[in-house]
Amino acid sequence: MNPKQTDRRRFLKNSAALAGLAVGASAGALPVAAEPALEHVDELHQYGERSHFVESVRVGSINNPERRLPNEPRDFGLKTPLQDSAGIITPSSLHYIVSHGYEPPDINPRDHRLLIHGMVDRPLILSLEDIQRLPSVSRFHFIECHGNSTTGGLGGPVRISPDATVQDTHGSTSCSQWTGVPLATILKEAGVQKSATWIIAEGADQNKHSKSIPLQKAMDDALVAYAQNGEPVRPEQGYPLRLVIPGWQGINNVKWLRRIDLVDEPYMGMMEISRYPRLMPDGKSRWFEFEMGPKSVITRPSGGQRLATQGFYEITGLAWSGGGAIRRVEVSTDGGKTWKDARIHEPIASKSHTRFSIAWNWNGEETMLQSRCTDDKGVVQPSLAEVAKHWGTDIDFFRKSTLIVSDLNAIQPWKVNQDGSVKNAIF
Amino acid sequence: MNPKQTDRRRFLKNSAALAGLAVGASAGALPVAAEPALEHVDELHQYGERSHFVESVRVGSINNPERRLPNEPRDFGLKTPLQDSAGIITPSSLHYIVSHGYEPPDINPRDHRLLIHGMVDRPLILSLEDIQRLPSVSRFHFIECHGNSTTGGLGGPVRISPDATVQDTHGSTSCSQWTGVPLATILKEAGVQKSATWIIAEGADQNKHSKSIPLQKAMDDALVAYAQNGEPVRPEQGYPLRLVIPGWQGINNVKWLRRIDLVDEPYMGMMEISRYPRLMPDGKSRWFEFEMGPKSVITRPSGGQRLATQGFYEITGLAWSGGGAIRRVEVSTDGGKTWKDARIHEPIASKSHTRFSIAWNWNGEETMLQSRCTDDKGVVQPSLAEVAKHWGTDIDFFRKSTLIVSDLNAIQPWKVNQDGSVKNAIF
Repeated sequence: MNPKQTDRRRFLKNSAALAGLAVGASAGALPVAAEPALEHVDELHQYGERSHFVESVRVGSINNPERRLPNEPRDFGLKTPLQDSAGIITPSSLHYIVSHGYEPPDINPRDHRLLIHGMVDRPLILSLEDIQRLPSVSRFHFIECHGNSTTGGLGGPVRISPDATVQDTHGSTSCSQWTGVPLATILKEAGVQKSATWIIAEGADQNKHSKSIPLQKAMDDALVAYAQNGEPVRPEQGYPLRLVIPGWQGINNVKWLRRIDLVDEPYMGMMEISRYPRLMPDGKSRWFEFEMGPKSVITRPSGGQRLATQGFYEITGLAWSGGGAIRRVEVSTDGGKTWKDARIHEPIASKSHTRFSIAWNWNGEETMLQSRCTDDKGVVQPSLAEVAKHWGTDIDFFRKSTLIVSDLNAIQPWKVNQDGSVKNAIF
Repeated sequence: MNPKQTDRRRFLKNSAALAGLAVGASAGALPVAAEPALEHVDELHQYGERSHFVESVRVGSINNPERRLPNEPRDFGLKTPLQDSAGIITPSSLHYIVSHGYEPPDINPRDHRLLIHGMVDRPLILSLEDIQRLPSVSRFHFIECHGNSTTGGLGGPVRISPDATVQDTHGSTSCSQWTGVPLATILKEAGVQKSATWIIAEGADQNKHSKSIPLQKAMDDALVAYAQNGEPVRPEQGYPLRLVIPGWQGINNVKWLRRIDLVDEPYMGMMEISRYPRLMPDGKSRWFEFEMGPKSVITRPSGGQRLATQGFYEITGLAWSGGGAIRRVEVSTDGGKTWKDARIHEPIASKSHTRFSIAWNWNGEETMLQSRCTDDKGVVQPSLAEVAKHWGTDIDFFRKSTLIVSDLNAIQPWKVNQDGSVKNAIF
């Protein structure tokens, strides 16, 4: 409350942009917004909309005909505009989508059932209403395409353009508060037999996407989710039921979940056979990878943005890890010479996006901004050089086209130019 | 993993509805959803929509011409469908609205400014961009109309109908992750003078809604919020800037914030003079009430819902307090004779909705379901009888029509009838 004390905390004192705006005038001259037409207001009432001045949208590649298999429907991938993110929640309307050969099915929830069968004592068919009677939990979890921040996958080439935004480079991850029933609760109802070691989860999409998941993970923290950010799961995210497999590659989070088969070995489904094995430098292939490593990225300032003036900026971004909660985020504003601890904001949830920020005064010189995180297992996000040492040049695990960089969870550098422009520095 | 152990945790074993559904069939007979027309899918891509099968909407009184003052524009109040809530986030499209005589203004953010003036050393005019350069925080906070769960305010009479839903009784509270700059940061930039003790916050709506708020609260935890649930604040909630005054009556959370005047006494604005003073049994009037007391309500099962069968149900609901975080929630399923501790779900944030749940087996008999919460100051949610002892019969603080019950934060009882129907028991 003491004005002298508060001076120490001033952020704007070096800001040329603001100095000219400080005035002693009363508010009388400020314009009052006009009342809009009543019909415009009425349409906002029952289920509100965002301002028409807000233009943030998902972008990506809707079609990629050259990469299709014969007779395969179109793929599409749409990325979350992380450059406009605030807090840790991705608006459900902006949650990323990667769709391998199908469109969201239009499911009437009254007709939808979840079948639990295979190596169980009591096979079950559950309606949505049955599931909602069971004890539910709500947890913040990210879901991330394992091709995110690599040049593989849909829309890959833009990842290595100097003009890439953080939406282009990292937009295939999103975070929601998911509400649902622990899969363990449902499996216990069905009575898992001792011989069962894997589950095969299947969706109600046209291609009946299926994925093999170890039973141990299914019993640990998997959710049969019916709500996302306080309302029913969106059609593009699996309405009415999505299997959420926290911290694991996106492909495990089976949408439009309709069936779980308890089995004693993984099945060689389409994804397991044709798309997700990854060739190592020694010619061997990695199958059944699951957990996403610790990753972080600065979302503001980031590629395509421009610093208006010298002076104070808050650098902010997101960090997450499939291994658990984020314990530490460091930021470098000098090209990696020095690193400072960023502030990690609450809530710090396990396998969730976590917001970080740090104060920065830009002196107008060219520089490089980077972040790196550490999860609560102590695993540190690697540099690009460290990743390359391990993985070598890689093969596009989607369609065998040559990858230039397989950065995976590597540190993302943003170059700040003297004109204030911010550019992707992985290219 | 041992099937014998898991039996102890079975929820469905007494459920008649499910026993008939357990089958040994394969999934072959389940219908596969048809692929919708491409044009339908395309419109979902850039900014997704919910399923057309989801019908949850805000409801309330759009118009109340008899209660208008001369020359006053229409009021409207729209309540959140808490019966469909999951987790703690209210979808921004469903955040409650109480609007005293204005419609949401249609503000171009590039033209919007926030003026800080009055008893400050350096008056400031800040653009949205200026504000977003400053250090931000993201916090979960409820905003609640202080008429919520009373018979006062817009749409009051339905509160005491036996057919009232939880949307009718308690739907004027909503919870978001708000992102913005602490007001203290901005006031420190401006340099608060020693003489200042109050702020007057003003919106850019047609009526220039203003509210007097003690400086101490403004410096404590007030936010100048520009984002809500990960995207810009919605027009109905104050786009582009809303003042968030955590835990205090909704009216303090000035929307379309354009001006903060530092002064040395509260101003007698329209709300302070005509609408919000509250008459006590002794004829004295309470002015400048602020903090919302601890409150909880069961959202499922709740008024208007129906229990399909006897057997297991998870009772779930929300608790919140303007005094801090929720420390305890107790639930009674026998008309208040006995109370059991419910599970409180993470995250348990201060001045935020908090999800609770408890297991219940309904034996098919008529009963009463109630919840009561305790906040971390130790304040316990009162019964209706306790509230009535203090407040007596009250006067409608909006328009002096007689209130039948002024329950405020009283415990909400839901009556369960033998036919499974659930009814409001405050009538």
